Amino acid sequence: MGIDLNSDVGESFGAYILGRDADLIPLITSANVACGFHAGDPGVMRATVALAREYGVAVGAHPGFPDLVGFGRREMKATPREVEDAVAYQIGALAGIAATEGVRLQHVKAHGALYNMAVHDASLADAIARATASVDRTLILLGLPGSQLIAAGERAGLRTVAEGFADRAYQPDGTLVPRSQPGAVIEQVVTVVTRAIMMARDHVVIATDGSRVPLQVETMCVHGDTPGAAALARHVRDALKAAGIDITAMGAASA
Amino acid sequence: MGIDLNSDVGESFGAYILGRDADLIPLITSANVACGFHAGDPGVMRATVALAREYGVAVGAHPGFPDLVGFGRREMKATPREVEDAVAYQIGALAGIAATEGVRLQHVKAHGALYNMAVHDASLADAIARATASVDRTLILLGLPGSQLIAAGERAGLRTVAEGFADRAYQPDGTLVPRSQPGAVIEQVVTVVTRAIMMARDHVVIATDGSRVPLQVETMCVHGDTPGAAALARHVRDALKAAGIDITAMGAASA
Amino acid sequence: MGIDLNSDVGESFGAYILGRDADLIPLITSANVACGFHAGDPGVMRATVALAREYGVAVGAHPGFPDLVGFGRREMKATPREVEDAVAYQIGALAGIAATEGVRLQHVKAHGALYNMAVHDASLADAIARATASVDRTLILLGLPGSQLIAAGERAGLRTVAEGFADRAYQPDGTLVPRSQPGAVIEQVVTVVTRAIMMARDHVVIATDGSRVPLQVETMCVHGDTPGAAALARHVRDALKAAGIDITAMGAASA
Amino acid sequence: MGIDLNSDVGESFGAYILGRDADLIPLITSANVACGFHAGDPGVMRATVALAREYGVAVGAHPGFPDLVGFGRREMKATPREVEDAVAYQIGALAGIAATEGVRLQHVKAHGALYNMAVHDASLADAIARATASVDRTLILLGLPGSQLIAAGERAGLRTVAEGFADRAYQPDGTLVPRSQPGAVIEQVVTVVTRAIMMARDHVVIATDGSRVPLQVETMCVHGDTPGAAALARHVRDALKAAGIDITAMGAASA
Repeated sequence: MGIDLNSDVGESFGAYILGRDADLIPLITSANVACGFHAGDPGVMRATVALAREYGVAVGAHPGFPDLVGFGRREMKATPREVEDAVAYQIGALAGIAATEGVRLQHVKAHGALYNMAVHDASLADAIARATASVDRTLILLGLPGSQLIAAGERAGLRTVAEGFADRAYQPDGTLVPRSQPGAVIEQVVTVVTRAIMMARDHVVIATDGSRVPLQVETMCVHGDTPGAAALARHVRDALKAAGIDITAMGAASA
Repeated sequence: MGIDLNSDVGESFGAYILGRDADLIPLITSANVACGFHAGDPGVMRATVALAREYGVAVGAHPGFPDLVGFGRREMKATPREVEDAVAYQIGALAGIAATEGVRLQHVKAHGALYNMAVHDASLADAIARATASVDRTLILLGLPGSQLIAAGERAGLRTVAEGFADRAYQPDGTLVPRSQPGAVIEQVVTVVTRAIMMARDHVVIATDGSRVPLQVETMCVHGDTPGAAALARHVRDALKAAGIDITAMGAASA
Repeated sequence: MGIDLNSDVGESFGAYILGRDADLIPLITSANVACGFHAGDPGVMRATVALAREYGVAVGAHPGFPDLVGFGRREMKATPREVEDAVAYQIGALAGIAATEGVRLQHVKAHGALYNMAVHDASLADAIARATASVDRTLILLGLPGSQLIAAGERAGLRTVAEGFADRAYQPDGTLVPRSQPGAVIEQVVTVVTRAIMMARDHVVIATDGSRVPLQVETMCVHGDTPGAAALARHVRDALKAAGIDITAMGAASA
Repeated sequence: MGIDLNSDVGESFGAYILGRDADLIPLITSANVACGFHAGDPGVMRATVALAREYGVAVGAHPGFPDLVGFGRREMKATPREVEDAVAYQIGALAGIAATEGVRLQHVKAHGALYNMAVHDASLADAIARATASVDRTLILLGLPGSQLIAAGERAGLRTVAEGFADRAYQPDGTLVPRSQPGAVIEQVVTVVTRAIMMARDHVVIATDGSRVPLQVETMCVHGDTPGAAALARHVRDALKAAGIDITAMGAASA
């Protein structure tokens, strides 16, 4: 029994520092590295891959919309063809940078608005999955359990990995409570830690109505953009280990 | 006895069309594809690779400075580290796009100001060569004969290929007459064709003072940004063939 | 009785040439100049303003979404605040460039997806109108007749000008037939010219069902991105003059 | 007897926070606001102008090279025409944003590599001065005392203001010790404060060889990108006031 811990890193850009990668990377097993469209630049990407390699953390691409000023968080009406090309470009760019550090990519996780749109939009999800499979058939595609992205990954012949969030509230149907609603993000350390263990060990989550909802996830996303978040990630990691759950990169599990 | 014909293509961007790739690609053996920093975008890159594949033309990366409005033609004081990362990023990005078309990259040719600066600047040349070798040791690196770029490629353990220009005037020391001087570009078809044959068959060029200068080149650059240029490229190709010179991709020669 | 002829110009970028501004600008009375977000750069903007000044053509800002690769044609979920700031920035930037040519701006016309979204989205329309009024209260705001943009302009205390298209089919409710539908664009010269005269003189358009729909417009948009389009613009201009209709800049009419 | 205190602000971008504008702006009299080319975006620009207005701080444009990833610190071989257009664009853009807050611009200070290149390059300096004067003849142009920028401002008929740095070492000829040399930046609070008073009151600076060098400056640059720097700025401000020197915006002095 094990779980992967993934986090969005490499989101600095030029003179701009974002996130606490040095604190967070030692805690996780899979690093989602921004690829220059919504965040990141070639120098930041290389430094992030080098840090991941130093701590034995697997590296994945975190492609987003070409919207640096909006951090890839704004929906854009791009065609599936445009998305497919943009994703292939970004995966390739990170693979090139990773090669200079002797690292091969493990996975792909879409970022921000692209990730959210691909939950429901099958043609966008197929575009992401097709791009991933075309660049490298062995890449693992991340997505929300039950999302179009997971279905698209399967259609494309990729290994898919479903992702859970210990610090987010879930609705009875297993989807996330939108951030715009009160209580969407859970901040109490004990609650988050408890949910992480239930998710990893029992494959369930307690929904907003108190019901136990089955949730099969192989990776859990931890955030590190605030000092508190990094500390929380450490608590989650320690608690999972104490509960006898292995913290292992998703790619290692397939070996 | 053979020669490769290379050309800079894939320089369109979004709604902007530049060059006559459809006319030019059928005439050449190696396509230098812009990678999104000075020209090109993911969609243009894919379409260009698809066109090259259709005509059996080998594909290479044409990385440049991050300067779209200046088309990569303006010198920038970037550090060798910045150049190395930017080149690795761009090669990787094109490799990702090419993979979606089932194509592997053959070579790397730096673009514009980056190419020109790397003629004399050894640390910049080393940065380009190191990036190329790190991404893929089998890539061929193009450069002017006698340039720091060729020397750097050899230091990095890469196969290097020297490039000549049938439509450019040469100085007695074997370097190009700068474009800023009169007579730098040769336009008469017969003269260009004659020089192409001398370059490919006899490995010499007639310099501005009338002297015969030895010039060992394995590839010749042809331009296609005007209707006349595409016609000229056809004349050069036909004349070389008529003179019994094989037109073969540089990568094929090594097989 | 008179009408203004406006056209989108200054859409080149760096080494990329788009449109036939030199052919088109002499035919129109109001030039909508791209401001660097979806097209245009500082040098192109200055050259375009200089050309407009040479022919006595009034200059307006043509702000768009920050999406160069998508030419501002892709919808983006930007907040009204983001749109307001982006529009104020772009109007100011063009006003700065225009000042170097001794030219004051006459009007503002939103571009592409921003223009289309502001037809129905009142908060986006208000953002555009507020930005325009804040930068310069005397600027004229263009929009489709009956659109939220015209209403927003009035709320902001701006002079508004409604725009018609002689080469586009109209629905019985006075809105344009979407470009995605067959017959949306009219290409026959005689038909376009006839519709232009009816629009300018009789303030009506024949809708797709044959009905006469009232349409009050003070400016007509002409396109110039193809050789044929520039010729068509000349036909429209000549026919309007022959029909006794003055071709005058919208700003002049208010004097 | 008085002095202006200026600082580079508004250097955040999208999700990226840079500098401590909220701490620094209350301490200064003139704010140099980044204009979107090397830093800043329309939303950041507006928020920065609003903050400056709140504290009665005069606003100026801080135009730079179009190099976001390099933060405008890398030299680029742009032509004087390109620089003139880019500077006019950026001043205009900030003026547009400032208008939405009811603020008029007071001055222009070139940023980073552009500022440094214009110390010695007369044609670049003329380009900056010409752009400034064309957009608004009443703008004040900042520069190093004795620089080409100050001379160019005078040629363009602008009011110029020479700038000093209390925390930088000076050479006997009155130029700054380059940052690459040891001791270029002075960090001891007492030394910086003493030099600030000597600069503002006695118009001299002690050079690296101990000699007293005359230095006529009307504004002093204070930095705020670290917590210590903001505290230092407060010390300088308090000490100047205690020494009986007025802290007044440069534009106010001309009234």
